[in-house]
Amino acid sequence: MIQVGIVGGTGYTGVELLRILALHPKVEVAVVTSRADAGTRVDAVYPSLRGYSNAVFTPPELETLADCQVVFFATPNGTAMLMAEQLLQRGVKIIDLSADFRLQDVKQWEHWYGMQHACPDLISEAVYGLPEINREVIKTAQLIACPGCYPTAVQLGFLPLIEQNLIDNGRLIADVKSGVSGAGRKAELSSLMSETGESFKAYAVAGHRHLPEIIQGLSHVAAETVGLTFVPHLTPMIRGIHATLYGQLHTDVADLQARYEQRYAHEPFVDVLPAGVHPDTRNVRGSNRCQIAIHQPQGGSTVVVLSVIDNLVKGAAGQAVQAMNIQFGLEEGMGLQTVALYP
Amino acid sequence: MIQVGIVGGTGYTGVELLRILALHPKVEVAVVTSRADAGTRVDAVYPSLRGYSNAVFTPPELETLADCQVVFFATPNGTAMLMAEQLLQRGVKIIDLSADFRLQDVKQWEHWYGMQHACPDLISEAVYGLPEINREVIKTAQLIACPGCYPTAVQLGFLPLIEQNLIDNGRLIADVKSGVSGAGRKAELSSLMSETGESFKAYAVAGHRHLPEIIQGLSHVAAETVGLTFVPHLTPMIRGIHATLYGQLHTDVADLQARYEQRYAHEPFVDVLPAGVHPDTRNVRGSNRCQIAIHQPQGGSTVVVLSVIDNLVKGAAGQAVQAMNIQFGLEEGMGLQTVALYP
Amino acid sequence: MIQVGIVGGTGYTGVELLRILALHPKVEVAVVTSRADAGTRVDAVYPSLRGYSNAVFTPPELETLADCQVVFFATPNGTAMLMAEQLLQRGVKIIDLSADFRLQDVKQWEHWYGMQHACPDLISEAVYGLPEINREVIKTAQLIACPGCYPTAVQLGFLPLIEQNLIDNGRLIADVKSGVSGAGRKAELSSLMSETGESFKAYAVAGHRHLPEIIQGLSHVAAETVGLTFVPHLTPMIRGIHATLYGQLHTDVADLQARYEQRYAHEPFVDVLPAGVHPDTRNVRGSNRCQIAIHQPQGGSTVVVLSVIDNLVKGAAGQAVQAMNIQFGLEEGMGLQTVALYP
Amino acid sequence: MIQVGIVGGTGYTGVELLRILALHPKVEVAVVTSRADAGTRVDAVYPSLRGYSNAVFTPPELETLADCQVVFFATPNGTAMLMAEQLLQRGVKIIDLSADFRLQDVKQWEHWYGMQHACPDLISEAVYGLPEINREVIKTAQLIACPGCYPTAVQLGFLPLIEQNLIDNGRLIADVKSGVSGAGRKAELSSLMSETGESFKAYAVAGHRHLPEIIQGLSHVAAETVGLTFVPHLTPMIRGIHATLYGQLHTDVADLQARYEQRYAHEPFVDVLPAGVHPDTRNVRGSNRCQIAIHQPQGGSTVVVLSVIDNLVKGAAGQAVQAMNIQFGLEEGMGLQTVALYP
Repeated sequence: MIQVGIVGGTGYTGVELLRILALHPKVEVAVVTSRADAGTRVDAVYPSLRGYSNAVFTPPELETLADCQVVFFATPNGTAMLMAEQLLQRGVKIIDLSADFRLQDVKQWEHWYGMQHACPDLISEAVYGLPEINREVIKTAQLIACPGCYPTAVQLGFLPLIEQNLIDNGRLIADVKSGVSGAGRKAELSSLMSETGESFKAYAVAGHRHLPEIIQGLSHVAAETVGLTFVPHLTPMIRGIHATLYGQLHTDVADLQARYEQRYAHEPFVDVLPAGVHPDTRNVRGSNRCQIAIHQPQGGSTVVVLSVIDNLVKGAAGQAVQAMNIQFGLEEGMGLQTVALYP
Repeated sequence: MIQVGIVGGTGYTGVELLRILALHPKVEVAVVTSRADAGTRVDAVYPSLRGYSNAVFTPPELETLADCQVVFFATPNGTAMLMAEQLLQRGVKIIDLSADFRLQDVKQWEHWYGMQHACPDLISEAVYGLPEINREVIKTAQLIACPGCYPTAVQLGFLPLIEQNLIDNGRLIADVKSGVSGAGRKAELSSLMSETGESFKAYAVAGHRHLPEIIQGLSHVAAETVGLTFVPHLTPMIRGIHATLYGQLHTDVADLQARYEQRYAHEPFVDVLPAGVHPDTRNVRGSNRCQIAIHQPQGGSTVVVLSVIDNLVKGAAGQAVQAMNIQFGLEEGMGLQTVALYP
Repeated sequence: MIQVGIVGGTGYTGVELLRILALHPKVEVAVVTSRADAGTRVDAVYPSLRGYSNAVFTPPELETLADCQVVFFATPNGTAMLMAEQLLQRGVKIIDLSADFRLQDVKQWEHWYGMQHACPDLISEAVYGLPEINREVIKTAQLIACPGCYPTAVQLGFLPLIEQNLIDNGRLIADVKSGVSGAGRKAELSSLMSETGESFKAYAVAGHRHLPEIIQGLSHVAAETVGLTFVPHLTPMIRGIHATLYGQLHTDVADLQARYEQRYAHEPFVDVLPAGVHPDTRNVRGSNRCQIAIHQPQGGSTVVVLSVIDNLVKGAAGQAVQAMNIQFGLEEGMGLQTVALYP
Repeated sequence: MIQVGIVGGTGYTGVELLRILALHPKVEVAVVTSRADAGTRVDAVYPSLRGYSNAVFTPPELETLADCQVVFFATPNGTAMLMAEQLLQRGVKIIDLSADFRLQDVKQWEHWYGMQHACPDLISEAVYGLPEINREVIKTAQLIACPGCYPTAVQLGFLPLIEQNLIDNGRLIADVKSGVSGAGRKAELSSLMSETGESFKAYAVAGHRHLPEIIQGLSHVAAETVGLTFVPHLTPMIRGIHATLYGQLHTDVADLQARYEQRYAHEPFVDVLPAGVHPDTRNVRGSNRCQIAIHQPQGGSTVVVLSVIDNLVKGAAGQAVQAMNIQFGLEEGMGLQTVALYP
């Protein structure tokens, strides 16, 4: 059994890791840390895990984590970078669900995240953990930076168009809607039911931290810097991201449906829907799947891609486990074969 | 007191008319029709109206309606056109909340609505009831076609940009999200709580009936045919529309915030928010107001307009009463001075 | 115009007072205090009030409040009692929406609220602001303690049964369900959308602060100490309280429906529904009304009373304004004539 | 592999069976019927099942169903009784999720369900499929009547109290709250999001079909006819049932917590929470578990039991699969080991 540590087990990505790993046949969760809840049983905080976890939260300590083979960081930004170097030196693989190692440009990272990076030298060693692009390098990665939730939905949606040079890379638009669990398990006024329920709004239109991450990813694929307008929205539900993506097609582009189906034919967690269908976030709720549809309204030059994920699964914990499976040579979908919870 | 009739009082726009008109100081609701509920007290179907309405649903009959000064049609599409001619001949003003008289091109109407129009000659007499464009002609209109909910939010958002020729009219994008009450009070599987709650999806991407209506309105303002990609979405809440609009600015456009504020300075129901703010649908819930914000992310050439309304008020019943007030020479905001219900 | 002050204008009861008073024809909101937001325009915090309020939050200071004729406290428990005495001495009437003056037994208050009472001598002067019981004394009250939200729904539901000695007062059961706005506008983990949405739970079964308040009120009416089991629940919605009340009927009790109708025949804000109907919280959303239904399942000895209110209106701000109207000799329903927002 | 048929695969219990059985290691779903969707792929109706099911809906025909070893009826009431006899004669086991065989008294059944029973002789052969009571007889049952969702939550909550004769069986109260998926996947006005969202109500207080079922079950355990007041409520969420149960304790009853823990110590799907905890429906969402807590407010004579299930799992499809596992000698929890989806 692979010995796993989870740092920051009391957030939504932490408990989602616990949910998934509780039934993973090759993993034993050896350490779950939480400063605030140290000494408390995990299933006392999360009664959904009663019977599936005997773990007790411990303070985050190097020595106990160093006995693990892999450590997941489900922490706020700025935490993983403080422990990464020492763990790597001890031979522990790291899968970071936070943003600490997502941006290759440290200056940009420090601009968007408002703090100094603690180990800039490690950034270039980090592998961006999007299996649909980086499967081969993930296999040998010691340090994996898991993509953000918005970046996962947006990149998977745009990927075939950009890889095959089908659209004007200079003017991409991503209008993306997220459930409120994306804001995390933090006592913030703006995340209250009374503030978010029965209402819809855009936020951070001036600039969101996931913007440079998406641009970095798509620019890498495009081999040129893409131009992206990214507008995130908050939608009154708990789980789910729906990306509505707009691109301007070059002339004489055909067979979009077939191109998408071929691109993702061998991807276990990207599902291209039949032509004309609209994906619905509930159909991926609790699952690690991304469902995608491609539309070309009125046969015009604007292509509309609809891409949905569960932000806590394919957008966070599920994708992290998928990366771990690849990293440890396991079957890629191990522990992730669940049917979405509908209705 | 103005004698008012409401045809189709059992749908959401019908009950919203009843809610608003119950407190309108110059109106008496004389007739409320419903075939299905004829003979039943209105407040037995809608207990929220107990004490505010003694009306009883009657079958829709010309004679009783002809005694009214104005008749609102809150009916499914295809109903108002069957009674309009006779009522107009009897001197009754008509305010149609359905789509029967919204499109000037009858062929287009028949294409999108899938039926033959019963009185094509009347179409040209109909006034499109968006006060922010048509206030003057509404004053003398006999037949008012109230805008759809999506078209209201989208047109009010784009209007200043197009009137002042600030963007490329050929490639407009409207990514719009609606609460489920927009689908009406009909027993349909797709509107169940279990089908729409906790989930988000786009629909009708290939073409929605409000597309030609929006194009007609914006093209009229632009004095050229605009090109629009319109993607409607269903968001898991009851009331509210949030339009996220994208346009490509011509070079050297400045002062967008000031332009919007000036354009709507004298509009009682359009509220341009301060720079940098994001509107939230809850802040217009139950009110007749449209709140708008203008953003120019990263100072680029893509302008993003955020426009929110309550689909049942400014998107339907409230706008209809606003038009009636104009039509009857009343203070435009009479009966519509309510503060949105937050939280 | 009556000069009104609101202490604690940034909570949900505060903004609800602002919503109601904005349209009250005899009131001018002269002072709105908030330590945290002092200097900020009220409508910058609450964009729903744009155009309806020019107020700016100020720090809570005796001098400015003393110029008001009446001051509403929409503050956390323990605040009103610190300023009450001085304001009363200056001739200012006080309407306290918090719990500071609700319990006549100061020892009990200190037990349940976990602090020492700052002005125990004032408690006996306070009038419990439930108009359906205390209308006459409210007229001359200087200090009004507004009932809690649960106590309002429960007392109005039980009142006719207890006044007329129809049930066993020793074993009352109140199974009550509240929307999450009842928890207030505070950054607490337990009030997050992700924690409360799509889920239902009971809480505080061992004892809730509203238990002694309900017992005090019903015991006063019963002229004996009643026995009550009170189980509050959290339901995934924002506004609304639904009380399901159970009592054991004495033998030979008949005409329950008629008794309720007669008891509340002249109450402007208690609406007894026709026999057989079930009230729905949405039908009182945004309104000051309590809707009540009485059932006697299978004709047995257990009576079931269903009582619904909007916790922020009849359960807080609306009831406070109703009391103010009585206190100032205004028409009791002034500013409170609104139709519930359905759907 | 056990060959399974599902009659009525397009309702919520049907798709929930498909979700669970898709990952059951010993089952092959050979037939899924639907008159309305015959010829359509199951995963075209339910995109959540893409990749997990290649089934195509077929009309319900005896010949194809007779080739199965077990047939689940996930049909409206009145359907299973029409095919049961023939299937049983062909040696097919039947697990009926509808109400056709739940009530042993056929007259009572015909009264509550408003139709004549098609095969009254079979009723006495039917085994009520609540494993916590009937595990032994389920092992050899040919015809299993799965309990309703309310009856499951209520009976599991009351069971220890009644089995051990701890309360007054003559005056039980069950105040139960259900998510809207309990109403099924039917196009009904009352199940619309706009009708059920953001609102709470009781319904069927005069009498609900689950009342005689609960009374039958509890009376059997009590060996006397129990007296029950049952009030069902609709709560604005999709999945989940929360039963709040009230009983009057006999004097000198102690150790309630221990009694519950002992009673359910060996039950794989009943989880007694630690003393003082309140269960939350989200903690069993998507799982087959019932979580229970026992409270004795203020140490009085009224015991309050809180019992939660997912109405579609332990309240329907999960319990049916649990029964099938018992019936076929499989490990009882096979295919049911999932962690609830939180948040």
